[in-house]
Amino acid sequence: MTDPFDRQQLQRAIALARESVGSGGGPFGAVITRRGQVVAEACNRVTVHNDPTAHAEIEALRQATRILGRPHLSDCVVYASCEPCPMCLAASLWAQIPRIVFAAPYTEAIRAGFADTPIAMQLYGQARPLAPAPGLLTQLALDEAATPFDDWLACAHRQPY
Amino acid sequence: MTDPFDRQQLQRAIALARESVGSGGGPFGAVITRRGQVVAEACNRVTVHNDPTAHAEIEALRQATRILGRPHLSDCVVYASCEPCPMCLAASLWAQIPRIVFAAPYTEAIRAGFADTPIAMQLYGQARPLAPAPGLLTQLALDEAATPFDDWLACAHRQPY
Repeated sequence: MTDPFDRQQLQRAIALARESVGSGGGPFGAVITRRGQVVAEACNRVTVHNDPTAHAEIEALRQATRILGRPHLSDCVVYASCEPCPMCLAASLWAQIPRIVFAAPYTEAIRAGFADTPIAMQLYGQARPLAPAPGLLTQLALDEAATPFDDWLACAHRQPY
Repeated sequence: MTDPFDRQQLQRAIALARESVGSGGGPFGAVITRRGQVVAEACNRVTVHNDPTAHAEIEALRQATRILGRPHLSDCVVYASCEPCPMCLAASLWAQIPRIVFAAPYTEAIRAGFADTPIAMQLYGQARPLAPAPGLLTQLALDEAATPFDDWLACAHRQPY
């Protein structure tokens, strides 16, 4: 059974991912909520800002912590259009995020040519983290989860990174 | 046998880590070099900027990529005062950094109360990454490696995070 609020936030994250491709970024979006309210929304800006750390989740975490004026978000939820890469997962843990809900699995990032899994192989020795805290990661499968990646692969002027 | 250039950059990273404690940050510093020249220097700003991603290595990566105008640093070396946490390691891999030299081992971060290892346990299932590329990580033990942590633990107004 899917919580309608969770579904709505993920749909927004996916819409942000599609907008990102349209504005020269990678096909990833993220939303952070706190007590049922949106605190931050962001999309991938790696090639737009020449910043390898500007993944959607990191951009959203930086925005949310700036807005709330504290480095910890233990009362917040991260919604990500795709399964978080090792950098975004570790950043979320530093921010004390207790729950991450994502739509597309890591295999979609592979399909689109991103290095999430090669990096995970170096760090985890496998595609997914070894021992995430119970409840930390939830996949909510949505029909539209693959659309940002389809957009990306169809985009003639995409900048891989 | 220690390369004098490597030693000099690490000593600078350690000096930055000590300066960071003096200016309200965590006890971590980093330097990025390219072809024997310093491109970026940074220290931890997590609590100063309320940014959980503002580790020294991330700050230095963002600075170096901004200066060089590209998201990849495959011709650069990262020097870190302490063994990189999972976030900084993954960020370095996204930036295509081929070599990271560090001074203090992760056990120093544990001694000072930082969450590097609890986070690594969730991601790696152990304190250190499973299969880093050959040559990626080099520890260069220096007598002064522990001093930023000693400063931190002696600092009455430190802000743990």
